[in-house]
This record gives sequence, C-alpha cells and structure tokens, in this order.
Amino acid sequence: MDFPSTFPIWNQLNTLQQNRILGSLTTRKVRKGALIHNGSMDCTGLLLVKSGQLRAYLLSDEGREITIYRLFDMDMCLFSASCIMRSIQFEITIEAEKDTEFWIIPAKIYKSIMEESASVANYTNELMATRFSDVMWLMEQVMWKSLDKRVAAFLLEEASIEGTNELKITHETIANHLGSHREVITRMLRYFQSEGIVRLSRGTVVILDEKKLEKLQEA
Amino acid sequence: MDFPSTFPIWNQLNTLQQNRILGSLTTRKVRKGALIHNGSMDCTGLLLVKSGQLRAYLLSDEGREITIYRLFDMDMCLFSASCIMRSIQFEITIEAEKDTEFWIIPAKIYKSIMEESASVANYTNELMATRFSDVMWLMEQVMWKSLDKRVAAFLLEEASIEGTNELKITHETIANHLGSHREVITRMLRYFQSEGIVRLSRGTVVILDEKKLEKLQEA
Repeated sequence: MDFPSTFPIWNQLNTLQQNRILGSLTTRKVRKGALIHNGSMDCTGLLLVKSGQLRAYLLSDEGREITIYRLFDMDMCLFSASCIMRSIQFEITIEAEKDTEFWIIPAKIYKSIMEESASVANYTNELMATRFSDVMWLMEQVMWKSLDKRVAAFLLEEASIEGTNELKITHETIANHLGSHREVITRMLRYFQSEGIVRLSRGTVVILDEKKLEKLQEA
Repeated sequence: MDFPSTFPIWNQLNTLQQNRILGSLTTRKVRKGALIHNGSMDCTGLLLVKSGQLRAYLLSDEGREITIYRLFDMDMCLFSASCIMRSIQFEITIEAEKDTEFWIIPAKIYKSIMEESASVANYTNELMATRFSDVMWLMEQVMWKSLDKRVAAFLLEEASIEGTNELKITHETIANHLGSHREVITRMLRYFQSEGIVRLSRGTVVILDEKKLEKLQEA
C-alpha cells in the first residue's frame, strides 16, 4: 500500500504538487496508547492512517474525556493540522487505540496546495463536513439519548470493530469514550448483567445477548 | 449596504462569477419567529444577513431544542445550503429571532463557483471551521459545565446582544436555547432571584447583579 493509491485525490494534483507532497511526507509507527497530538502541541500535520486505529477526543480541564470520532485504515485526520485554518478554535487530543502506522503530510505543504487548488480545498471541506456530522450526531446523543442507550450502542460498535463479543475494555475506558464517570458506567453494566445482557469480569465485558442490546439502543 | 461590499470575498471572484451571483441573488424580509430553514425542507441556499438576528438549532424528535449558533448582521449561513456538500449529514433548523433581512445565494450557483475557485472553497472552509468551533465549544459546555454556569453565561450574552439588563424572555425560551427543560430553568432562576442576582416577573428577567453572574459563569 503506497501513498498515491491511498490518498483519495492524488490524481487531482498536478505533478508539482504530487512531488511537493512526496518530498515532505513522513511515516510513523506508534504503539497502542501513544499520544499523537494534543491541542497545545505544535501543528502536527495531516495524518493518513495506513493501518491501526486512532481516537480523537475532547479533554476537560479536570481530565474528563469524550470520544469525538475514531479513525481507521485509510482515514484522514484533519484536526491534527488545525493550524491550516485560522477559524479552528478548539483543541482535540488524538491517541492510538491500537498499534498504528500513518503518513504525515506537513501542515505547511498541505496548506499551500489547498490555497492554490480548488479540488484540494473542496476535499478538505468534505473531510471537515464528515467530522462535523460526527460531532452533531454526538451532540444529539448527549442531549437527547439516555445513557443506557449510549452504552448499548457503544458496546455494539466495539464488538463490530473488534469482531468479537468478548471485549477487553475497562469501565473507566467506556466512561472516557462516553464522557461519563466510571461509577456510573459500572452501575449501568451491572444492570445489564442482571438482565442477562452481558457478563462482567476483570477488564472484560462479554456480550451475551446482542439482540437485547440492539433493542435497547433503538428504543 | 449592497451585496458586493458585504460579501467578504467579492473581490476574489472574477467578473463572470460576480455576475452569476448578482443574477441569481434574491433578498427576503421575514418577521421575528419565522422559520427560515429546516432540515427536511429543500436546500434553501446560502444566507447573508443584512440586518436582524437568526438562530440555528438542533431539534429532537420530541420537540426539544438546543441553540447551536446565532447569526447577526453580515454573518453568513452555510448550513441552510447543506446540499452543497454531500458529507453534511445533519439537519439544523433556522429561525428569525428578530425581524431579519437577508440575501440568498442559490445553492447550485454557490456550489458551481466553489468547485472552480480555490478562494471560494477556502472561504467556505473557514466558515465551516467557525461553526465547528461553536459546536465544539457548546459540546464542552454541555459535557463539563454545570447548568447554573450555562444559565449565567446565557443571561450575560443576552444582555450584551440586547444592550439592556431587562430581558424580555420566557423560561421556556431559555430552556430551548440551552437544551434544558422549562421546569429546570425556572428552579435555577428562582435560586438566582433568592441570591439577589435577578428579579423575575412575567416574561421578564431583570439582571440586578452582573458581577455575581460573571463570577458564577467563570467559577
């Protein structure tokens, strides 16, 4: 898998632009848990995920977290290069949820190409609109959906990502994804267990009844 | 006030593009309370506010509301033309908070110019980034800030917009701005009243102690 065949608008760049990107491109491999970008760091650049999984989240002053979106193979991360647009006035943190390999396009290079190319600017627009849609969906969840539905949806999402119903995940981690507290998640999971929906053990949540979870999520 | 002197990137358009916009531009005057756009309607177009005040909000299936951002003189509304980007997968509702006059650029015309002009595409990017920042700020408020601080901040914002400490606003309206319930807002305002911060009467909230509100907001 090489960069040109992965970068969605490669063919819309002219040779000069292609060479500027190839000449400045770097790759990086990080371990699960690595912090890749935080709001106060320098402008990292645009990330294109080769393989692995990244998580972008909001971090409060008190250390609370809520997951904004996740990135998988071939996904592009724009907000790690938030300096390319002066109107981006928020800070997100990005960490590796799995061992991850990605390309970095330096922010300066991308910005200069975006300024001269309508295709690149419009592609960037679509990228941002996708993330915007994620955040608006999340806002609706947070505002109008009860926590039991959100936990149900999260467990189903995890099972789908991992391809297994035996999830290696702590209550603390689930709380950090959903912007909740560990104690609250523990109480909810125990309720799920008493209903026969999951089985809990140290660091593991096993989904026993997917159908009930799906019903709960949709209710 | 004419369109060319109000539209921020007018001078970055070529004559052809300028004529396409001028030839398709319409103006509209609406009364306070008018519904200008909702997610399920047709793609209204880009709005440029001449004078007045608009409110963009999320509406839940159950009729609950939360204000996402507000638009004032010379502000541009992008999401009333959400069809110009296929990745915009959310629906907002826009209503007039005051009698408002605005220009409408048809979505099709704007989209075609955006596709050929890097300047217009990048301007659109900045517009979206501004709204994205509003939403991220709101997400932080909703997630980590207690309601008393949010009500305090809202009352101060209203006083600043209206230029008076005597606010003609119902508890229901405040609840709809903040994504809360009327009963909850009434309880909070009564608490504020008992602390000597506001005085309540039918349809009116008078701010008596701005300093206390500011302290509360920052706490």
